[in-house]
Amino acid sequence: MFGAMGALGLAPAAVATPATAFTPPNPSDFTLSGRSARTVLVLGAGIAGLTTAYELGKAGYRVTLLEGRGRPGGRNWTVRGGDTETDLNGETQRVRFADGQYMNAGPGRIPQHHVTMDYCRELGVPLEPFVNQNANALLYYTGDTAVSNQAVTHRAAKADVYGYVSELLAKATDAGALDGELSADDRESLIEFLRDFGDLGNSTGDDAAANLYLGGSGRRGYDVAPGAGLQSGTVSPAPALGDVIASGIGREFSFEFGWDQAVMMLQPVGGMDRIAYALERAVGPAKIRYGATVTGIRTTPTGADVDYTDAAGVPHTATADFVVNTIPPHLAARIPHNLGPAVTTALQAPRPGATGKIGLEYSRRWWEEDRRIYGGITNTDLDLSHIWYPSSGFHGSSGVVVGYYNYGQDALDYAALPHSARRSRAVVNGAKIHGDVYGRDITSSFSVSWSATRFSEGGWVGWADQEGPDYRTLLAPQGNVYFAGDHLSHAIAWQHGAMTSARAAVTALHERVMTS
Amino acid sequence: MFGAMGALGLAPAAVATPATAFTPPNPSDFTLSGRSARTVLVLGAGIAGLTTAYELGKAGYRVTLLEGRGRPGGRNWTVRGGDTETDLNGETQRVRFADGQYMNAGPGRIPQHHVTMDYCRELGVPLEPFVNQNANALLYYTGDTAVSNQAVTHRAAKADVYGYVSELLAKATDAGALDGELSADDRESLIEFLRDFGDLGNSTGDDAAANLYLGGSGRRGYDVAPGAGLQSGTVSPAPALGDVIASGIGREFSFEFGWDQAVMMLQPVGGMDRIAYALERAVGPAKIRYGATVTGIRTTPTGADVDYTDAAGVPHTATADFVVNTIPPHLAARIPHNLGPAVTTALQAPRPGATGKIGLEYSRRWWEEDRRIYGGITNTDLDLSHIWYPSSGFHGSSGVVVGYYNYGQDALDYAALPHSARRSRAVVNGAKIHGDVYGRDITSSFSVSWSATRFSEGGWVGWADQEGPDYRTLLAPQGNVYFAGDHLSHAIAWQHGAMTSARAAVTALHERVMTS
Repeated sequence: MFGAMGALGLAPAAVATPATAFTPPNPSDFTLSGRSARTVLVLGAGIAGLTTAYELGKAGYRVTLLEGRGRPGGRNWTVRGGDTETDLNGETQRVRFADGQYMNAGPGRIPQHHVTMDYCRELGVPLEPFVNQNANALLYYTGDTAVSNQAVTHRAAKADVYGYVSELLAKATDAGALDGELSADDRESLIEFLRDFGDLGNSTGDDAAANLYLGGSGRRGYDVAPGAGLQSGTVSPAPALGDVIASGIGREFSFEFGWDQAVMMLQPVGGMDRIAYALERAVGPAKIRYGATVTGIRTTPTGADVDYTDAAGVPHTATADFVVNTIPPHLAARIPHNLGPAVTTALQAPRPGATGKIGLEYSRRWWEEDRRIYGGITNTDLDLSHIWYPSSGFHGSSGVVVGYYNYGQDALDYAALPHSARRSRAVVNGAKIHGDVYGRDITSSFSVSWSATRFSEGGWVGWADQEGPDYRTLLAPQGNVYFAGDHLSHAIAWQHGAMTSARAAVTALHERVMTS
Repeated sequence: MFGAMGALGLAPAAVATPATAFTPPNPSDFTLSGRSARTVLVLGAGIAGLTTAYELGKAGYRVTLLEGRGRPGGRNWTVRGGDTETDLNGETQRVRFADGQYMNAGPGRIPQHHVTMDYCRELGVPLEPFVNQNANALLYYTGDTAVSNQAVTHRAAKADVYGYVSELLAKATDAGALDGELSADDRESLIEFLRDFGDLGNSTGDDAAANLYLGGSGRRGYDVAPGAGLQSGTVSPAPALGDVIASGIGREFSFEFGWDQAVMMLQPVGGMDRIAYALERAVGPAKIRYGATVTGIRTTPTGADVDYTDAAGVPHTATADFVVNTIPPHLAARIPHNLGPAVTTALQAPRPGATGKIGLEYSRRWWEEDRRIYGGITNTDLDLSHIWYPSSGFHGSSGVVVGYYNYGQDALDYAALPHSARRSRAVVNGAKIHGDVYGRDITSSFSVSWSATRFSEGGWVGWADQEGPDYRTLLAPQGNVYFAGDHLSHAIAWQHGAMTSARAAVTALHERVMTS
């Protein structure tokens, strides 16, 4: 690919393939082999189901999707003004966001390298940056240090932690503690790096201070910004080393280094469900039976039967050559089937986790106007866990802040509350971080608790053993029934996982058809 | 502002004011005091000149701008298909970018906290993210280590540097080298931080390895990405500690921590000159005389006279109560005036620096398709210095990459070449980083050398002493002539500097009018 440069060892650093190479089924596979396209029932029109139907459809498979909800996408769900949702607690929320405002209740960001990007390109879904990191966003952790129980910018926290870590390592290096690890040249290179990385000795020309973190640089952020004339900017002094270390203020820095979370990230313009609707369009909406609740699955000598009730409660049985079941495993485990007890055990193995979000629509973008936060994420050990500021619509007349995005017990605690109480709790805690402004100018709100959401009953699942027999049981076809979904991938909770799993099921099914 | 929370010490971290508080002149200042608005000649319709005219205009000052170029904005210059430019070497380039494609030849990014953002809001200039940091962008440094002379992702470099730095500090801490600096609790907190920050001991449960950087985690990036089924992803092994340290691969990490450069950054939708044209509209285009080259400036007992030639070469003299001179100081120093030799000396003091960019328009967005780089910056010690990938238009049919953005001697070297040779040289060097793809599918190109650009003759200036007498001379009015521009601020090379300096001149001039 890179010609002579590769031979010279000058080829660029490897870029991960988005997934194991995938070749979609092709109509010519049938015409050239004299075989004919088969019928497939896909259970679930979430991202895995839609991808399965889309890829099978490319070769002419006659596909029908059965979907419990009234819309495509599953957990890929964007809520907008006019939508209503009744949760498993029996509460109905009506979304009142202004035109153009939305909240991605499920996935909200796409890494550059995910196969999700390929589908956006193939289907023409416009993308824009998702702001996953912002130096002006905040950290708020409770504790007993001088930097606890208050909002600190990511910017200041980084300056202080990197400053003191660099100072400590420079001192240890100078003291000879690493002479066994590093050559004299390496020690010099390391110190040079640390002085720059940690901004050491920044405000003095004093040699004795060259390896000290003195704070006071603009990296912490200014109280008065540099500007005209003699205004060189003023900076608050850094807290003491002991407070910075003991506070754990750097506990989530590594989030930014993650394969799936490092900038840059993207989002579809207008809402994540643009992907679901683009897939629906590509599949053909007529092939999707919405409001269909699956009540039974049976593999047969000639194919498979699926019982379901339609939106009116009328029972039906559908038959096809194959079934691809993308229903979340903990829900699929409850549906009667004839695939044997090992399948039920396997479906019960992964455990669903709770997660939730609240969208707070404000009539004033105070986070931009007052705080200079244009997108990004605030982290806290309060039960909100994360606050997301919108990545688009800057300087608009309103905006939706994700007031919490939490997991585990925090999410269960909010799930147990009616919406109004969730909102009150979110505002009380958010005000600890942002001040009273957090409770003002809220025009509407909507909260989702995925554990209390019908057809999901959880955000995503976790496996105790993702190489174990239960996992492998679901990777193999059971008679004429295949399984797919992000739970059958190493990208759980990501659309990438759903899509690559769908591709794996499509490949296995098609290979079987082509070799049988 | 935050009520009781402030009293409890719970107010959010300070957010820098964008600049010293500024109150625009107001028409009522005149009506209430019986004074009348004065006339002002503003020299230069760059960002400082436009801002000066805009703010004075709010109170009714009768302002005329004299601008040498045929457009507003000065160095805020967006080149698009159809534009032509003749440089001081005498070469004329005609821009052939496709519709919708552009390059910001001058400023390309705006920090969240700059006053530039306030003008965008006030003037209704739509903004979108500028991608200033991307884990998938590259580092390429020459040298003699195992990681030199090849492209390394920011992602992998960070994983390796942070991994080894953490390992070294953890070892030194464990060895007791920091017992004099840290309490036992702090040492434990520090080690906990380092294990997470450096991803230490990641692939084993072995206690002996708990403080070792073992590489192999997804933070480095995958050769085969995690996906369906049993595909948990494969990672290339990390280079050795000595190579990572000696390579200096982390030499530019601190860029991301800078006050002005830390994410998140923004850009106007469609080009930086949307700001210049919005200001032009707000000022009133009829008040700007384009093609006017200033040839003389005189303060007089009753105001000031300015000689200039118009686009046809016809000489004129304009008179006003005041002049605000925003012409770059090294150019203003050459214009005859009667302000005394100290002013000439002061204008000569700041030295202009060279900088340049080339825009390479490709008919295929290979950096996205092949390399999964959606915006961001590649750094190199090759003479390109930086490569910028476009922050918008993702998945489009074409795109403009900034093939180099360099300074100093590198910029002078390119400035000395005709455009075709600049392009060849940029492609040869870019191919070292990106492979042969860098030279394919280029449909057009345009390069700017600011040192060879008329009315600029440099990118921005540097002062030897920004608190010294020369600087202060230009901060004070000289008779009825004021000076403004980014060179008179602590935000040189930023529009923020030009705008805050303009505001300072406006404030001083208006105060004088109101108290005289």
